[in-house]
Amino acid sequence: MPRTITALTVRDIRTPTSRTLAGSDAVHTDPDYSAVYVVLKTDARDGLEGHGITFTLGRGNEVVVAAVRALQHLVIGSTLESLTADMAEFSKRLTFESQLRWIGPEKGVLHLATAAIVNAVWDLWAKVEGKPVWKMVADMTPEQLVACIDFRYLSDAITPAEALEVLTRKAPARDAREAEMRSDGYPAYITSAGWMGYPDEQVRALCYEAMEAGFTRFKIKVGRDSNENVRRTALVRSIIGDSAWLMMDANQAWDVGEAIEFLEPLKRFKPLWIEEPTSPDDVLGHATIRRAVKPVGVATGEHAANRVIFKQLMQAGAIDFCQFDNCRLGGLSEALAVLLMAAKFGVPVCPHAGGIGLCEYAQHVSLIDYICISGSIDNRAIEFADHLHEHFLDPVVVRGGRYFPPVKAGFSIEMRPASLDAFEYPAGSEWRK
Amino acid sequence: MPRTITALTVRDIRTPTSRTLAGSDAVHTDPDYSAVYVVLKTDARDGLEGHGITFTLGRGNEVVVAAVRALQHLVIGSTLESLTADMAEFSKRLTFESQLRWIGPEKGVLHLATAAIVNAVWDLWAKVEGKPVWKMVADMTPEQLVACIDFRYLSDAITPAEALEVLTRKAPARDAREAEMRSDGYPAYITSAGWMGYPDEQVRALCYEAMEAGFTRFKIKVGRDSNENVRRTALVRSIIGDSAWLMMDANQAWDVGEAIEFLEPLKRFKPLWIEEPTSPDDVLGHATIRRAVKPVGVATGEHAANRVIFKQLMQAGAIDFCQFDNCRLGGLSEALAVLLMAAKFGVPVCPHAGGIGLCEYAQHVSLIDYICISGSIDNRAIEFADHLHEHFLDPVVVRGGRYFPPVKAGFSIEMRPASLDAFEYPAGSEWRK
Repeated sequence: MPRTITALTVRDIRTPTSRTLAGSDAVHTDPDYSAVYVVLKTDARDGLEGHGITFTLGRGNEVVVAAVRALQHLVIGSTLESLTADMAEFSKRLTFESQLRWIGPEKGVLHLATAAIVNAVWDLWAKVEGKPVWKMVADMTPEQLVACIDFRYLSDAITPAEALEVLTRKAPARDAREAEMRSDGYPAYITSAGWMGYPDEQVRALCYEAMEAGFTRFKIKVGRDSNENVRRTALVRSIIGDSAWLMMDANQAWDVGEAIEFLEPLKRFKPLWIEEPTSPDDVLGHATIRRAVKPVGVATGEHAANRVIFKQLMQAGAIDFCQFDNCRLGGLSEALAVLLMAAKFGVPVCPHAGGIGLCEYAQHVSLIDYICISGSIDNRAIEFADHLHEHFLDPVVVRGGRYFPPVKAGFSIEMRPASLDAFEYPAGSEWRK
Repeated sequence: MPRTITALTVRDIRTPTSRTLAGSDAVHTDPDYSAVYVVLKTDARDGLEGHGITFTLGRGNEVVVAAVRALQHLVIGSTLESLTADMAEFSKRLTFESQLRWIGPEKGVLHLATAAIVNAVWDLWAKVEGKPVWKMVADMTPEQLVACIDFRYLSDAITPAEALEVLTRKAPARDAREAEMRSDGYPAYITSAGWMGYPDEQVRALCYEAMEAGFTRFKIKVGRDSNENVRRTALVRSIIGDSAWLMMDANQAWDVGEAIEFLEPLKRFKPLWIEEPTSPDDVLGHATIRRAVKPVGVATGEHAANRVIFKQLMQAGAIDFCQFDNCRLGGLSEALAVLLMAAKFGVPVCPHAGGIGLCEYAQHVSLIDYICISGSIDNRAIEFADHLHEHFLDPVVVRGGRYFPPVKAGFSIEMRPASLDAFEYPAGSEWRK
């Protein structure tokens, strides 16, 4: 029996993280980690729902809610089976809507909203299959996986045939990698020890705490005060030791030339990467910076608008690490396209996470990457921030600095009803305080 | 006496152009040309208001309205004088809002909304000065003009000092060029003869009508049916003759390789440019296409998200013609930055217009370009579509295929109150029919 999607609800959920400066960086000084929360309901008797979120920093969450409402007519009334039979076509339906695409296309508000809906369909699909999303994808044939992807605008970088070849090459050892993930987990790095607004004492305490928990990979925020950058980096390097991974994140604070200058005094601390050194739209700028700051790697992606930007970042040799965000892209369907390009170009993917629900999403992406696509965890780690997981029904399991694969059916993104009620903006109890 | 901006109103205005297929192209098959209409009110006794619009294709207009509301706290309560004293800072205030920028940054819905507000400030400023916007800018010193621009992320392509040099070099003959514009006007090209959805009869009749009106430059839509492209192009070329300009617009219909293939049989009709051959985000793709289709020029810009994309299009040698849209960019302030880069890189600017209100806006941009910045009209023309001008209080004056400079104070974007009431969506009389 096909199930028809009969309704879509969308809620504006915000957490007041700015009160403690959790999540703060050089540019986003006071984020309230927020979610646009989408639920798809169907006429099936099992009552299964598709849940999907997209992540924002607070103000503007209501604009993305409006965009979800603008898109909802494209999913309500469809059967789940008609969508999952051709996920590529479903992506096109959302991104090529003849009037709506003017306010994108495939970027910003409209694409954030698209992601919430597309991922809600993936969640529902996986629940119906009774598997976590990563496992459902890992059980697809290479042909089935390729059929989920809209290759529009990508054919000069990767064709469906090339994608199929990437997947087929990695297919034989899928089972072994899946077993390895279940026993050993996937490497994580921690961001939440080094938020910009945290005083030294707090950074120090959090680093020690993370080390005790088994973390060996740390990221800190840097910005437009060079002395401060050096001081904070020296502090963290002195705590974590020379063999730990240390990454730096400028969150778009610099022009191209400035990035190269600000990096110079930081090189001696041997960072693995500098993240978002400049505008996320600046493919050529990243390429220039990368040439200049070697051996420091260049990373970007949490603000890269879509697969066409990633295509160019790879074609131009502009990045050492690809950090797409499953919600910034148009959901998992587009993320699969970027994973395949990254595998072809040999660029490791370390997905953006942190924000509310993003760790829950990102683990699925990296598991799919390892098991089906790249087959490698070299130079890869999933971002981790140690907060807000208590709001999820199936929160991430991170032990010894590694993510362990979720086992419940779906995309791990379903929030606790009590959390949704408390943090709904502006009427929830946490906002009426 | 400084005037304080005390209120911002925003209205959802849509015209049912899809009923006649006016504006239709290969991708946007049924546009309802629409405007998000912003009015700034102040406490000054003269009652002057700042009007600004941004353009969309209908559905989604309400999402941009929501974005304007999300931004309005950044302008309400400010004095006009505090904004105009540092327009660069005002741009930054809107584009670097610490929470809102997550849903952009500087692209899509959020940037369209930014443009409406920024341009409403320009309109109000010019009304207070008692000049059309183009003339107010033409009367600025080079230093004053440069001070209007946020150079963030541009310094590897153009610095404020270089911009000043461009302007200073062109300053001496400003008066002569202004006089020339008043007497001869600025060249236009016409798009409204060749909409995708129009049958041959209609295209033929409209071409003859435009030729009689003095037009010698024509643009037609092309798409994914190669035979149809050839047939329509042959038809138009046979009517307009060999010496007329003929341009083609694919509206993002093709992948990179496809663009090159689809162009091959069209080259013999000697088009001046192929517009939007592929994704507007694909800088490197445009560069590849440009190398392959010479001597046909490559044009793009109406969907290019911001100055960072244009910077790269120029750095990569990806375009022969720059077609930014004053509403897609964050208003005139950012448009000035792109004009200056284009002058430095020697790329002619032919701004995107058509739409509703876009011709009214674009004439100011091109007049500023000619009088202050590039000093040239070679290979330049302002797009013109012959519809919807009746809704404006100060509509464009196009005679003999040329735009004549507006003379009323402001940005020429103020719509008739009766039009606003009739076309307000969904309650206006035109939508209740």
